[in-house]
Amino acid sequence: MIGRATAASVSEIREQFDASALGVELHDRIRRLFPICRSITGNGVRQTLRLLASEIDLVTREIPSGTRVFDWTVPKEWNIADAFVKDRSGRRVVDFASSNLHVVNYSIPVHRTVSLGELQEHLFSIPERPDWIPYKTSYYHANWGFCLSHRERERLREPEYEVCIESSLEDGHLTLGECYLPGQQADEVLFSCHVCHPSLCNDNLSGVSVAVSLARLLGQVQRRYSYRFLFVPGTIGAITWLALNADATRHIRYGLVLACLGDRGTMTYKRSRHGRAGIDAVAEHVLSGAGAPHEIQDFTPYGYDERQYCSPGFNLPVGVLSRTPWGRFPEYHTSADNLDFVTPDALADSLARCLDMVNVIEGNRTYTNGNPCCEPQLGRRGLYGSMGGHGGARQMEEALLWVLNFSDGTHSLLEIADRSRLPFDVVRRAAETLRRHGLLDG
Amino acid sequence: MIGRATAASVSEIREQFDASALGVELHDRIRRLFPICRSITGNGVRQTLRLLASEIDLVTREIPSGTRVFDWTVPKEWNIADAFVKDRSGRRVVDFASSNLHVVNYSIPVHRTVSLGELQEHLFSIPERPDWIPYKTSYYHANWGFCLSHRERERLREPEYEVCIESSLEDGHLTLGECYLPGQQADEVLFSCHVCHPSLCNDNLSGVSVAVSLARLLGQVQRRYSYRFLFVPGTIGAITWLALNADATRHIRYGLVLACLGDRGTMTYKRSRHGRAGIDAVAEHVLSGAGAPHEIQDFTPYGYDERQYCSPGFNLPVGVLSRTPWGRFPEYHTSADNLDFVTPDALADSLARCLDMVNVIEGNRTYTNGNPCCEPQLGRRGLYGSMGGHGGARQMEEALLWVLNFSDGTHSLLEIADRSRLPFDVVRRAAETLRRHGLLDG
Amino acid sequence: MIGRATAASVSEIREQFDASALGVELHDRIRRLFPICRSITGNGVRQTLRLLASEIDLVTREIPSGTRVFDWTVPKEWNIADAFVKDRSGRRVVDFASSNLHVVNYSIPVHRTVSLGELQEHLFSIPERPDWIPYKTSYYHANWGFCLSHRERERLREPEYEVCIESSLEDGHLTLGECYLPGQQADEVLFSCHVCHPSLCNDNLSGVSVAVSLARLLGQVQRRYSYRFLFVPGTIGAITWLALNADATRHIRYGLVLACLGDRGTMTYKRSRHGRAGIDAVAEHVLSGAGAPHEIQDFTPYGYDERQYCSPGFNLPVGVLSRTPWGRFPEYHTSADNLDFVTPDALADSLARCLDMVNVIEGNRTYTNGNPCCEPQLGRRGLYGSMGGHGGARQMEEALLWVLNFSDGTHSLLEIADRSRLPFDVVRRAAETLRRHGLLDG
Repeated sequence: MIGRATAASVSEIREQFDASALGVELHDRIRRLFPICRSITGNGVRQTLRLLASEIDLVTREIPSGTRVFDWTVPKEWNIADAFVKDRSGRRVVDFASSNLHVVNYSIPVHRTVSLGELQEHLFSIPERPDWIPYKTSYYHANWGFCLSHRERERLREPEYEVCIESSLEDGHLTLGECYLPGQQADEVLFSCHVCHPSLCNDNLSGVSVAVSLARLLGQVQRRYSYRFLFVPGTIGAITWLALNADATRHIRYGLVLACLGDRGTMTYKRSRHGRAGIDAVAEHVLSGAGAPHEIQDFTPYGYDERQYCSPGFNLPVGVLSRTPWGRFPEYHTSADNLDFVTPDALADSLARCLDMVNVIEGNRTYTNGNPCCEPQLGRRGLYGSMGGHGGARQMEEALLWVLNFSDGTHSLLEIADRSRLPFDVVRRAAETLRRHGLLDG
Repeated sequence: MIGRATAASVSEIREQFDASALGVELHDRIRRLFPICRSITGNGVRQTLRLLASEIDLVTREIPSGTRVFDWTVPKEWNIADAFVKDRSGRRVVDFASSNLHVVNYSIPVHRTVSLGELQEHLFSIPERPDWIPYKTSYYHANWGFCLSHRERERLREPEYEVCIESSLEDGHLTLGECYLPGQQADEVLFSCHVCHPSLCNDNLSGVSVAVSLARLLGQVQRRYSYRFLFVPGTIGAITWLALNADATRHIRYGLVLACLGDRGTMTYKRSRHGRAGIDAVAEHVLSGAGAPHEIQDFTPYGYDERQYCSPGFNLPVGVLSRTPWGRFPEYHTSADNLDFVTPDALADSLARCLDMVNVIEGNRTYTNGNPCCEPQLGRRGLYGSMGGHGGARQMEEALLWVLNFSDGTHSLLEIADRSRLPFDVVRRAAETLRRHGLLDG
Repeated sequence: MIGRATAASVSEIREQFDASALGVELHDRIRRLFPICRSITGNGVRQTLRLLASEIDLVTREIPSGTRVFDWTVPKEWNIADAFVKDRSGRRVVDFASSNLHVVNYSIPVHRTVSLGELQEHLFSIPERPDWIPYKTSYYHANWGFCLSHRERERLREPEYEVCIESSLEDGHLTLGECYLPGQQADEVLFSCHVCHPSLCNDNLSGVSVAVSLARLLGQVQRRYSYRFLFVPGTIGAITWLALNADATRHIRYGLVLACLGDRGTMTYKRSRHGRAGIDAVAEHVLSGAGAPHEIQDFTPYGYDERQYCSPGFNLPVGVLSRTPWGRFPEYHTSADNLDFVTPDALADSLARCLDMVNVIEGNRTYTNGNPCCEPQLGRRGLYGSMGGHGGARQMEEALLWVLNFSDGTHSLLEIADRSRLPFDVVRRAAETLRRHGLLDG
């Protein structure tokens, strides 16, 4: 089933969408990925991509440390085997084995006995959330450190502790994962998510999992556009991919960064830098048509990898789809962003919205009414019910009239759907009906 | 008085507007037209147009059945002499003579005895409005039927009834009525209303009556634009007129479909497909300036004959003026849309708004201030009161300054009125004053 | 210190702004100017300009009566020595010496005994404000009159009074004052205020005083733009200046009429005729960024000398800065617009807003990001804090990203500040930092 195109269409798989089964699939995948200690380089990313490759056609690429990518340099590769803080009795009071968040990501190796005073300078906790472990990184500044709950930290009373971080920071590679589903056109739709966070679920195993299920579903259908799914370390991964594929980005017609898609909050769409790109129109139509509360945000140059895709030299039509955006939920970048924080229902709902967007992207076209002078006689063709007399016109009849009236070669079906406030699929089906009757060209 | 241009201007007849007398004229005309059984073809339309021709210069045109008009064909002509449903005692339990709504419009002839069961399949009533007779048509699907109040329908208990519709559906003609008032320019203003509904008042004898009074009033004055009033059967009549006059439509600078202008509701203007055409600016200025609540709606491709005028091949600057729009009052397409539902006051108010619009259309011009550098000294010309010292500038002084400042060859008087929030007539009079003093060109 | 440019920048003097000391300076200047009997011509204007010349480099120009300026003619010069109304006991019941508002400005000379009835035709008072003396003028209509409180007026019971106005209306000159501070560019910023009102504070000694302090401050700094301060009689003064400098107006890039800047109300900005000129963007950014309530008004062709600057032949980018606008405070054009009505705090606040605007005008530039593909690595340059892990990005980091992302040669720093909702100065400092690091061109 993987990556094999059949005759089915996106709208068919959308109609057959089994939210309950897909919710379980999405959450189970997160559960499998959760324990891995990911970083921006190293075996955590490789192990993650290997798991994804069992489900989708994934190509991985290894870029050597030291490679120049625009203004950046691929860093040394980081790996970690073990880490702990031991008290004088030899008990591990902080233990990497129990949570990979305990070590500041990219910590340099260390093994010695330090005074509590010195240790404190290397500890991170959140006094306001005394049971949560924070997530910290130090990618480009050589340092070591431990993260722990504030309650654990307050229990440290001994004068000295043994600290050990069995990590390595050596020339190696940065690893990128990519799944490409060719379509009838070289024009493509980009989905991007980051794979550099350790045991954090909403940020961003949720985006990874939604991307994989979406790639699986799109792999089954006839595609008008090509689809590219990127699984890359945040910032340096996206920059590296762009540096290696700068020319190919001209094919990107629509793009979406997937992040924070598993929490119980409502959907949020952050516009592309352009602000009125196709992806913006598609996302706004889908979110407003889904009937649920949602939020549309203007572009800002901070957040996820839209920072790179929407840098002025690329200015790609890439938005961000989230539920609660990063930094707006207290669990963000803490151990509370765990398997309970993301739900099968929310994940399935996010996947449904992605599929809705793809459905609009695939179905959107601009037609020309071949009989532009007055309405054609729909009744004669069996397309019009009892309009005379009492009773309202029905939605499909309205859609037929909207499509006929605005298909003048300048309004797309999506624009007609927006203007008529009709669901895109009703408008698309109306257009298909009119084409079958020879009433639309193009 | 008919169609004879005199020296009076539209603004003068607007100032002398006698709402009370005109309200009576408008309602009396509806009263005379009410009993006629109109349809999209046949003698009902002819009889209606004959009555109108006694008041305005009306040209009628007969188009043979079978004539191709764009995607449509002029149908056979329908006429009806009598119709009834009789019980076994010979009593007419449904009688066309008491209301022409009782017969489904365009019913084919029938005369036989039918079981109550079969009869029920040909009956139409409104359970939620048990005293009202619905209005139903079957123009393009050969059928017969009766409409009756739900209360009457529930009284039908006998096993069999004699049904008779003495109608004819034969090759004949479609009849169009047109009143053209030539002006100084070939550019024209179109008013269109449908004349195909039987005994229904708001929809649309109200529009017919307002159009006739408006044509009478405009016939008396010097006209800058030419005016065309169309009295045509809905849909097929407008399509036929457009097919026969496709070239001439290039003269149409402003247009208005008149419908539902007699009920007690507030005014509604539905924008042209273009959305920012001259007629849209005029209507919005007039309705917002009239001080009464009103509603502005965007174009939709369903409704009255704006569907045809605003089809993409024509895309004419035609909006719709109504009070309560079609389908939004429960009396719509029922026997309750009767002579009590429309009032002289509402009809006169609608006519006043039409005249206001014509007044703006006639008076709107774009001037150029010949002294564009600094203000001219209005005081020296007696155009400026005591501005120095305490006290506010008055409306006319403000209008003089607005017209001088924005008459740069790109702002029309209507745009200046909108921008200044001054009534159009004050702005127009200011412009005339400035022209008299040689301060405006163009 | 006068007019001498030093190395300091506008942003530095804005940072060192001493509201308390400047408030005293502003109010004291008004106190010195208050007693002078100004008019649109005559020694009152000259005496006023002489006082200003002691503080700033002021050039005055005398234009002879009879000079044609566009549609206007410079009027005869008006001067006044004394005026009174005496009762039969010889007591001055109205005395010019106690308030120069007592005489209708531009009154022709008169000295005779008149009946109370005739006198009443030459008296002006405000019944609703019985203690206030109104301000009245009669520039272009030969007349004489007295203004007095309604309470004083009601005490006039004698049959006859001696009236005397010792004025002269003779060929002379109109006087204009101008302070020009050259900058690196010939492009200039215009500040204009009127100097024709007698003992009135908010209208408009407040504008005069703010303009003088602003000129003093700008005289101390390195200027990118040139600055021109006009101190001219209202209407005829502005018209005359424009007639004499029509060509030079092409240098005006930004302009502001200063008026009513001393009352306790909130700030008001009235847009230029253009509506989206640079000054409009600057003023709206500054007022909305100041955190205080404020009002933005669209242009109208009445008010102060924006009427002339924004006449269609010039259409200069000139707005109006006020606190409570003219005519919207009851004290307007009465003796209640006095030294208590304007406060040091309000005056200093108005000056601060002017300086804020100049700061934006001086600092606004459009840059090009030399590394437009992906973000440059700010961390490597010490420009980026601990972004990984828990904790939000700080304002300056955000500003760096905004400037980098939108500096594509089409967005000015002001547009970036508006879009990011960051204060202009933060954005400007971010741009300077990026330039220092070679990350911005232009």
